[in-house]
Parts: sequence; C-alpha cells; structure tokens
Amino acid sequence: MKTNEDFLRDIENYAKSLIYPQRPEGLYEPIDYVLAAKGKRVRPMLTLLGYSLYRDDVEKVMPVAWGIETYHNHTLLHDDLMDNADVRRGRPTVHKKWNENTAILSGDTMLIRSFRLLLEANCERKEELLDLVSRTMIEVCEGQQYDVNFESRTDVSEKEYMEMIRLKTSVLLACALKAGALAADAPKEECDILYSFAERIGLAFQLQDDYLDVYGDASVFGKAIGGDIVCGKKTYLLIKALEMASEADRELLLNLIQNKEIEADYKIKEVTALYDKIGAPKYCQEKIESLYSEAKSLWKELPHLDVVKENLWQFAISMLGRKS
Amino acid sequence: MKTNEDFLRDIENYAKSLIYPQRPEGLYEPIDYVLAAKGKRVRPMLTLLGYSLYRDDVEKVMPVAWGIETYHNHTLLHDDLMDNADVRRGRPTVHKKWNENTAILSGDTMLIRSFRLLLEANCERKEELLDLVSRTMIEVCEGQQYDVNFESRTDVSEKEYMEMIRLKTSVLLACALKAGALAADAPKEECDILYSFAERIGLAFQLQDDYLDVYGDASVFGKAIGGDIVCGKKTYLLIKALEMASEADRELLLNLIQNKEIEADYKIKEVTALYDKIGAPKYCQEKIESLYSEAKSLWKELPHLDVVKENLWQFAISMLGRKS
Repeated sequence: MKTNEDFLRDIENYAKSLIYPQRPEGLYEPIDYVLAAKGKRVRPMLTLLGYSLYRDDVEKVMPVAWGIETYHNHTLLHDDLMDNADVRRGRPTVHKKWNENTAILSGDTMLIRSFRLLLEANCERKEELLDLVSRTMIEVCEGQQYDVNFESRTDVSEKEYMEMIRLKTSVLLACALKAGALAADAPKEECDILYSFAERIGLAFQLQDDYLDVYGDASVFGKAIGGDIVCGKKTYLLIKALEMASEADRELLLNLIQNKEIEADYKIKEVTALYDKIGAPKYCQEKIESLYSEAKSLWKELPHLDVVKENLWQFAISMLGRKS
Repeated sequence: MKTNEDFLRDIENYAKSLIYPQRPEGLYEPIDYVLAAKGKRVRPMLTLLGYSLYRDDVEKVMPVAWGIETYHNHTLLHDDLMDNADVRRGRPTVHKKWNENTAILSGDTMLIRSFRLLLEANCERKEELLDLVSRTMIEVCEGQQYDVNFESRTDVSEKEYMEMIRLKTSVLLACALKAGALAADAPKEECDILYSFAERIGLAFQLQDDYLDVYGDASVFGKAIGGDIVCGKKTYLLIKALEMASEADRELLLNLIQNKEIEADYKIKEVTALYDKIGAPKYCQEKIESLYSEAKSLWKELPHLDVVKENLWQFAISMLGRKS
C-alpha cells in the first residue's frame, strides 16, 4: 500500500520521465523552470488519492494528474504577470527573470501542454473527464476576473467573495480529486461527494490563508504578515469587517485601506485593531470551522473503510495545517 | 450544392447560435468583440471545404471549424499584446480598448473555449483529430517564439525563415483543412495531401504578404506600404537580400535597417532600392511561384472530380489574390 510520500515521489518521477522538445529554448526553458519548482503538488496528489480510493494502478492516472498540475502552474505564471508579482516560491517570477512576452507565450504553451496530457487519459469516461477539467479551467478564469473586479469595489458581499474564491481556488482542487475518481470509474454519487469535499477544503484553505496573512506566525506562514492589508486586498476579514462594522468604523476602515500614503506597519496595526474590535477574526474562524465540519461529514459519507480514505483525510487536513 | 459564400454564411450563423455566459462582463465582452470582427474566416472555411470533399452534412464539423477559428483569434489577441499593436481589422486591439490583463485573461479563456469546442467533435477519428490540432497549437507557439528570436538576429537563413513561417502561419491552415477531412473519415493518404497542399498555400501566402508590404498597392493591400522595413522586421525579402548581397550592400542594408534615427519614407525608399539592386523581389516571386506549383500538383493528386475540389482551389487562390 502506497503512502502519501510515495505518491509525491511518483509524481516527481513521472514529471521527470516526460520528454519534451528543448527548442526554441526561449519558449521551453521558462516552462521547465516553473514546473521544476517543487511545491506541495496538492492537485496531482488529490487526483492520485481520488483514483487510489478505487484502483491501485495509479501510474495510469498520471497524465491526468500532471496535466492538472501543468494547468495550475500556467495560471500561476499568468496571474503573477497580471499581478506584477516579483517572487514565486522564493524565486523570481518568469516575467522578471525573462520578460513579459515570454510569460505570455510560455504560459500559453503550458495550457496547451496540459490539454495534451489530459488527452492521454485512458479511461471509460474520458469525455466526462475532459468536460469536467475544461469547464473548471473556464471557471478559474471567471474567478480571476471577479478577483480583479473586486479590487475597485468596496461593496463586495460575503456571498460574492465566497463565490469568487470558490471559482478561483476551490473548483480546481475539487476537479483534481473528482478527476481521479472519474478516471477510476467510481460511482457517480461518490464522485460528487469527493467534489464537494475538496470544494469545502479549498474554501477553508483560502479563508485560512486570509486569516494567517494577518494573524499568522510569519516564520510558519512563509510570507510577511499584513501583506493583504498593505495592498488593500479584498479578503474575507476585510469584507466581513466592512459588513459588520458600525458606520463610523466602516468609514475609518475604508480610509485606512484606501490611503496609499500611510506607512505600512502603522496601517497593519490600525486595521488589525479594527478587525479585532469588529470581530472579523472570530467570524473568519467560525466560517472555517463550519466548512471543516461540512468537509468531515462529506468524507464520512464515503462508503470506504480503508487506509486510502484515511490518507485522503490526512492530506486534506495537512493542507489546513491541522493534525485532526 | 453549397457555394463558398454559403459556407461563410453557415460559419457566421453557427457562431451566432452559440450560447455563452455573459458574466463576468470584463472577461466575456472582449471575447465577443474579437470574434465578432468579421475576417475572411479562412481557417474554418478550410475545415468546411476539407470536410465537404467527403461528406455533405457540414453542420457536423462546425464545432471543429469554429474551435480552430477561436484558437486563431486567441493567437491574434496575445500576439497583438506581445507586439504592442494598436489596431486589428480597423479597430483598437483588446489591450488598447481594455487593458493588458484583460488581453491575457480573455485570451486564455478563448484558448480553453477552443479546446471545449474541439471536444464536441463527433467522429470516428476524434483522438487523431484532437492530437493534430493540439500539436499544431504547440507548433504555432514555437513559430511565434522563433519570430521573436529573429528580431535580435541578423544571420537568419532562408531555411530558418521558411521553417518559422511554416510554424507560425502554415501549419494552422494545413491543420484546419486536414481536420475537416479527418472529421469526414477521409483516407489517410488524402488527408496528408490536403495538409501539404494547405501548407504550401500558407507559405506562399506569407511570402506574398512580405512582398506586398514593399511592392503592393496600399489601397489593395489594406496596410501602409513599407511597414516591415520601418520596423526592421525579418521578412523573406530582407533575409534573401542579406544572403545575396555583396559585402558592401549587406553592410549598407544592415545599417539602414538597424538605424532608428532615419526618417521612415527615406528608409523605405533606400531599402527598396537595395532590394531591387540585389534582386530580392525576383527571388521572392520565384519562391512564391514554386510553392504555388507544388500546391497545384498536390491538388491535382486528389482523386476527386467534383465541384467541391474546384471550390477548394478557388478558395486557395483567392487567398493569394489570384484568379488562376
């Protein structure tokens, strides 16, 4: 029986085994650079876990798992360009190391390469699988567009925010897990449970990211604290705080967030104090707990009784930095 | 029997019949804007012609034809951004009318949408079809990268140039025609003839574009004359002139092309005079004629004897602005 560590090793080995053209170098070097950055490989791990709930021959689902990972890295490449981000996983982003045109074209090539990997899927329900993944890709673009739209708005509702992060983050995680199950020809009902399960985990993960950006330990979180506050990003904390604040506090909060003259540390301190006063961290934690409970209930609904089901749970809660 | 005009109308009607989400508007409006710009619809026309050599029910191949057209428009959108072009088909480009991030994200969405259309293909050899189109998409990216690489080089060979335009322009035309035949389950050998035929036409078309940019009639060509010379673009004329020139003329030509201080009209006049002296337009015309002859021979090899074969020829030579 393979462990999650085995799966991670399988994924890296599969990626290394792929033979792609090397020229033109200006096109392919940036792709290798992006894909070589070892992350947690969350999405392909979910695909392997979804598949291994039903079948042991996980090597068969590798093109799907790596196709989804390649797609995910395409979105990171283009998102970094759109956000003009300098650093990704501790290294310069592609448009900084090369240039903007390289980021566009190598990113496009990654998207096409991800299609080509998905086309290698060898399973009964290939049509359903390709429809799921390609529909999800469209949804991720919609999520990114809503995120951009929210930048210039101050009246984003909690519901709108949850839908945006669902599209931008959760649906791809849900798709990755369900794709694995689909490739293994799992019963429709279980595929849907797995989708909903990963969707909840994804939402909780994003809210936790919002929370830790303000209340986390920088050394554990891996990023400087307060980054979202400094750039006025619409997060769950901000949206919920704006919704629940008194008229006066709302005014105060908006002024702080929108004022680009204020020194960063002062801004972080003042905004955090307002969040605390309004109760935003509490609302955020409650929402995370509620999503976590929903995920746990869905997981329990799965009719499996084996170690793979447990591995899936362990992997999901490790994403949330939990032990139980 | 449908005429080429009927096909063009069918394509526009099919495009209008598609129902896509409208929101987020910031994502979908630019896509509608790009696809509504009526061009000659060369690629979907080729797909319909390739299909109709073998079958009459062309409505069945529409998702493939429009998927390829959607992909082509995705490349125009991203290429215009990379080239920082202001105008396309007489209207502002997407990054000018909206912004750069919109061009990136709406362009990505078009690529995914084209993939989803191709997945709708309903034919025996769907796998072969999807492999052909997605491989072609990768080749088009390679062609674009070579084109970018050539900007900073002065030693591009004729062979390298021909391979670049083959990848950047021809393979998609060839793919469009062959995809139609494949969808109609045409014999393998005929599929390959059709591919080679459209590849030659595509190469001749690109060389003709290079030629007309210098020697065309602005009112017919639709663009100002000499644009390629002014921006120092590597064209067949320039590459062949650099190859065939005496040492002294080569020096002169490079100085003219690379000097950004020289006034545009003077530069066009001087470079054209050098082209004439070296014989570049003659070499270019000979190459076009040779490709045209090859295309004609390939077309003759097709074992059809009907009006559709004639329609294909008429369409191909209309691309080259010829009557015979």
